[in-house]
Amino acid sequence: MMERLCFGIDIGGTSVKLGIFTEKGNLLDKWEIPTRKEDGGSHILEDVAASVNKKIADDNLARENIIGIGIGVPGPVTEDGTVIHCVNLGWGVFNVAKETKRLTGFETLVGNDANVAALGEMWQGGGRGYVNLIMVTLGTGVGGGVILNGEILTGSNGAAGEIGHIMVNYEEEDRCNCGRKGCLEQFASATGIVKEAKRLLEKSREPSELRNMEYLSAKAIFDCAKKGDVLSNQLVEQLCRYLGIAMSHIAHVVDPQAFVIGGGVSKAGTMLTDLIKKYYENNVLFALKNKDFKLAELGNDAGIYGSAKLIIGK
Amino acid sequence: MMERLCFGIDIGGTSVKLGIFTEKGNLLDKWEIPTRKEDGGSHILEDVAASVNKKIADDNLARENIIGIGIGVPGPVTEDGTVIHCVNLGWGVFNVAKETKRLTGFETLVGNDANVAALGEMWQGGGRGYVNLIMVTLGTGVGGGVILNGEILTGSNGAAGEIGHIMVNYEEEDRCNCGRKGCLEQFASATGIVKEAKRLLEKSREPSELRNMEYLSAKAIFDCAKKGDVLSNQLVEQLCRYLGIAMSHIAHVVDPQAFVIGGGVSKAGTMLTDLIKKYYENNVLFALKNKDFKLAELGNDAGIYGSAKLIIGK
Repeated sequence: MMERLCFGIDIGGTSVKLGIFTEKGNLLDKWEIPTRKEDGGSHILEDVAASVNKKIADDNLARENIIGIGIGVPGPVTEDGTVIHCVNLGWGVFNVAKETKRLTGFETLVGNDANVAALGEMWQGGGRGYVNLIMVTLGTGVGGGVILNGEILTGSNGAAGEIGHIMVNYEEEDRCNCGRKGCLEQFASATGIVKEAKRLLEKSREPSELRNMEYLSAKAIFDCAKKGDVLSNQLVEQLCRYLGIAMSHIAHVVDPQAFVIGGGVSKAGTMLTDLIKKYYENNVLFALKNKDFKLAELGNDAGIYGSAKLIIGK
Repeated sequence: MMERLCFGIDIGGTSVKLGIFTEKGNLLDKWEIPTRKEDGGSHILEDVAASVNKKIADDNLARENIIGIGIGVPGPVTEDGTVIHCVNLGWGVFNVAKETKRLTGFETLVGNDANVAALGEMWQGGGRGYVNLIMVTLGTGVGGGVILNGEILTGSNGAAGEIGHIMVNYEEEDRCNCGRKGCLEQFASATGIVKEAKRLLEKSREPSELRNMEYLSAKAIFDCAKKGDVLSNQLVEQLCRYLGIAMSHIAHVVDPQAFVIGGGVSKAGTMLTDLIKKYYENNVLFALKNKDFKLAELGNDAGIYGSAKLIIGK
């Protein structure tokens, strides 16, 4: 008998990533389709269904061998697969799992994109071997996923793991995208560190390589820090300090085995994890020290892996 | 056939509380014995076993009707019932569940005292009706318990819910009992608010009723605040602000349905919960607003209720 297969799908604001996986976690093929956001995003799941059906036809797959479909979406999702305003997709409130099942005939499970990325990293990425872990994604924003006993913690309103909005700076005057002030995301995201760099360059008279750059980026700041640039190091220290503090808060609540750091900023590598760990350890009880700090390994595929795992692990 | 029964036991530093419960949660009888801490606490479980056996003999109970024993202990416990240094009892590292079963013949489950108190409040106290809740106990220290899907979250080293040690004040110079600086417990416990009061009275020239008191207590401070005393209100505001902030951190991690506030300080009532809620709401994402803030109802019996529930829910 053929090994059973499933689809892992990650719906983003500009493209939908699709993958077909074996039950054991081998990614057989992956591809992308554009996210059609017109008409309140009402064509997105139709396009997904058409792409799934085309793949089945093209590869001559037996429908009875397909376990089902897992989907990650950019917004809060309750455990039954209901999304509550995915603003990036134009979606209101409706049950994505039921609608996808209606369109494809396959069993479907749905999770928040940051949460399924965490599940993917646990399954086949930097979090392999752990069942209790926190994934922190440092990209345009700061996302998070909480995995307990091998499963995503959704929370009572689908908002568990929204760690980018933990307040870390009591004095901040600028507002976060969420409307409040002092959120972790304002300091520890790729956009946050660039904004902080501009501020610091204006405030300080210290010479810095950053002053000669036309286009500041998180990568440039980390690169300059590695070469000894003083202001860049200050910026990296601040980012890691706020992350370490927020992660200490998380640990006092759920006491995970490990933290997995992903997203573009995590390309800075062990310089990042070592510094975060230093600030983390300064801020936790003795019983919470010595956690593992790992780098994510699946990059942009974490979402399709985790979505696949959703339906395999059901 | 007789209704089945179980023992709920709460081991504290000075006394052991014992209760006998029906399966449905009726407390039939409760009593206390002293905690014998000599010889590394090695007599504590012997005394517990003797007291359980005496109760069974006195009441002429059928052993086959006893479901088992639940025990709460003041320190970290792993899921299999191993304690890791209960300093208050003189205990090192050993399996309390196995030892109690050996001494009594009854199935035994063990949890951390703050965690079982949370379970007790969910079962028969202020948290009835919720399955995802955070209990915060404001006593000599600040304890916490995290209940997810109706069960205690233990954490990978038994340190989940140690929320009294969430760092909330970056500038604090004095040390917490844990050795670090700026822990929630330093501001939001009964001892913390008294220490803060002494500091404030020294620093400020504002007249205050507190100045005339021989013996400052959390209760006195809350009473004076209710009567309009300015410095007392400042102290209460600070306590609630730090609690609200710490609870906002917790919510961004686990998104609970409700918070239940217990311990001596919670006798201040809705003045306390209303103010905490205000600061909480200032510091959370929109999706996390409108949580329920409840007062605990079981007082010192929360531990025996929760211990009983441990073994009933097994």
